[in-house]
Amino acid sequence: MTVPPNPAAKRPDPSVGTLRSPTRTVRLFTPDRPFVPDIGAELPEVDVAYETYGELSEDRDNAIFICHALTGDAHAAGWHEGDRRPGWWDTMIGPGKPVDTDRFFVISANLLGGCSGTTGPASINPATGQAWGLDFPLVQMKDLVTVHRALMHHLGIERLRAVVGGSLGGMQALEWSLSHPEEIANAIVIASSSRLTAQNIAFSAVARSAIMRDSHFHDGQYAAAGTAPRLGLSIARMMAHITYLSVQAMDEKFGRRWQSQPTYGFGADFQVESYLNHQGSVFLDRFDALSYLYLTRSMDYFDPFAEPEWQQRVDRITRFLVLSFDSDWRFDTTHSERIVRKLEHAQAPVTFREISSPAGHDAFLLEVPEYHRTVRAFLGRAMELDLHTGQTSGKTGSAR
Amino acid sequence: MTVPPNPAAKRPDPSVGTLRSPTRTVRLFTPDRPFVPDIGAELPEVDVAYETYGELSEDRDNAIFICHALTGDAHAAGWHEGDRRPGWWDTMIGPGKPVDTDRFFVISANLLGGCSGTTGPASINPATGQAWGLDFPLVQMKDLVTVHRALMHHLGIERLRAVVGGSLGGMQALEWSLSHPEEIANAIVIASSSRLTAQNIAFSAVARSAIMRDSHFHDGQYAAAGTAPRLGLSIARMMAHITYLSVQAMDEKFGRRWQSQPTYGFGADFQVESYLNHQGSVFLDRFDALSYLYLTRSMDYFDPFAEPEWQQRVDRITRFLVLSFDSDWRFDTTHSERIVRKLEHAQAPVTFREISSPAGHDAFLLEVPEYHRTVRAFLGRAMELDLHTGQTSGKTGSAR
Repeated sequence: MTVPPNPAAKRPDPSVGTLRSPTRTVRLFTPDRPFVPDIGAELPEVDVAYETYGELSEDRDNAIFICHALTGDAHAAGWHEGDRRPGWWDTMIGPGKPVDTDRFFVISANLLGGCSGTTGPASINPATGQAWGLDFPLVQMKDLVTVHRALMHHLGIERLRAVVGGSLGGMQALEWSLSHPEEIANAIVIASSSRLTAQNIAFSAVARSAIMRDSHFHDGQYAAAGTAPRLGLSIARMMAHITYLSVQAMDEKFGRRWQSQPTYGFGADFQVESYLNHQGSVFLDRFDALSYLYLTRSMDYFDPFAEPEWQQRVDRITRFLVLSFDSDWRFDTTHSERIVRKLEHAQAPVTFREISSPAGHDAFLLEVPEYHRTVRAFLGRAMELDLHTGQTSGKTGSAR
Repeated sequence: MTVPPNPAAKRPDPSVGTLRSPTRTVRLFTPDRPFVPDIGAELPEVDVAYETYGELSEDRDNAIFICHALTGDAHAAGWHEGDRRPGWWDTMIGPGKPVDTDRFFVISANLLGGCSGTTGPASINPATGQAWGLDFPLVQMKDLVTVHRALMHHLGIERLRAVVGGSLGGMQALEWSLSHPEEIANAIVIASSSRLTAQNIAFSAVARSAIMRDSHFHDGQYAAAGTAPRLGLSIARMMAHITYLSVQAMDEKFGRRWQSQPTYGFGADFQVESYLNHQGSVFLDRFDALSYLYLTRSMDYFDPFAEPEWQQRVDRITRFLVLSFDSDWRFDTTHSERIVRKLEHAQAPVTFREISSPAGHDAFLLEVPEYHRTVRAFLGRAMELDLHTGQTSGKTGSAR
């Protein structure tokens, strides 16, 4: 996931009301009630980092859960002290924005297996006092959902007005809706997939190979060795960035322009080389190589429509909005079409839109007018329906 | 360039006549007549490895020059002692094949900067007794052509009936035709480009970064250190392989099939992972990391239509056949269309075909019937034209 600088997102005027939610952390699983991943094993402690925006209604019926992409975190919107830019989805979430914090209570949490406050493979294993490393169990999409369901319950919420996510976040939203439809009134699945192609897996496999074969990987115990697989992780990030942009977007952004002039050597002669080097480098300060391994692997294995009996569960309970972008070649429209086909076959109510944007996969993070209008309209209608029956409730306007 | 095993290419019956041309090497530049690359500097010695197939006609008017792709070599066709498979373009070149060795004298030579017999950055610098390493000058497409022109002259040939190449080889064929049209009666430019996109450059940049930042790179003097940047080169190769196949071809070849069963770990669980590991590994035995750097860089810089006065030179002298494949996303059809547009604008005779094949970029190496028919027909007509005037010569059939 790229988080391009958003020129519209200037630092807010401190005199104007704006989102300022700190990241909080809560321990949701403890040794007496450990987390048991789907494949077995046990995590005696799981902490979850999260933020919330807006206010929960008295009826607790206006909660929206935001699911982040591969390298996202809980800080989806608003500003933290010292931020140079706002949360990664600040264009989408806020007062008057498509995910309107004047109407909704919005929850955004870091994923299990992540590295931004929620327990992951770089967290300390209490049994050894060292990082879990490769002893961390291979968590799957359903485990990521289980942990966020625990957060939802911790916040006193039984049923979500909506779950919303792009890319890996869309996978999480889909998994949650298919496995626990009774908790999800509406789901928005954006630029996502229900099943990676061989090419998708291949890109992640090369990235993981670069990380695990880096001489500083130390079988995953690099922190104890006082080092990190910086080469591997930056190569992974550079390669991923290529897949986040369309050919056209890259050509518009960089074309064949020189960084300064041709040096006839192997430095960053072209602007696109300089950009990739920069992306590979800044990523090292904010993301952990083990989390990259685990979260990409959870995507490889994800295949919810292969699960038994999902069709019986979803029948008309959750309304779906599935969105793709026409220039996205990481998860192109055929991925979304497959989700739509499967859901329609199971009689789930589905709305599908292919949004036109030249930005490629990254479009889901950008302020594309048709995209934002579609999300806004879907969530507007979501508030007019009774949370439990899905029928028009007569209730309109603010949920507070 | 992938060279997939060709099931039709069984080892020949030794009793049947087949191509058995050894690779020969000739020194074409010597200290008294050194090679001076376009950017300056000097190579006191340049050896060129080449093979030939068929016989040169008395009029020396039936020569076809084959230009190989990034990781190809002089061994384009036929069998060498001990070969487990034939040359990389054996489906295209041979008796009765589209490049018909019963009619044509075919030359195939390793590129300057390569690592299969022609002088390159891993060759010994006579001044130091060590490998050139990064002291090797940054050779460009025109330099690769200059060296192969010297080979052509060495073989007593003034003008080629055709130059034929795919991918990087197509770039070389295009460069040769634009810079020395008087030497090229016909040019076949396949799955190629006249100017890389930012995305094309980006993939190569990440590959080079993986090689040059490998701790075994030693500033290019890895041979002296008794090592090699194996991690970087294999990552480069794995990534490149993804771009050589279409999404569809990868899904047909591997889909999401398990190698044996899911291990819930980071081994090669999926067949596509095992395939990439294998490709990354076997490549190390046959290709040099420095050549990978130099040859990809020559592609980045290539932009012949930006050269002054190319239009004046090509006017109606060389006939072009430009071919693309509809599933090729490394050099998609828009690359070929640009070449065609530029050539047509300069009044050059151009035939263009987009061939349908699901194989992606690799299709140019495969036996795609429409593709082979088109090449065969174009070369058939090429023999009917007078080599020097381009008019119908009345001469048909065998050139010998």
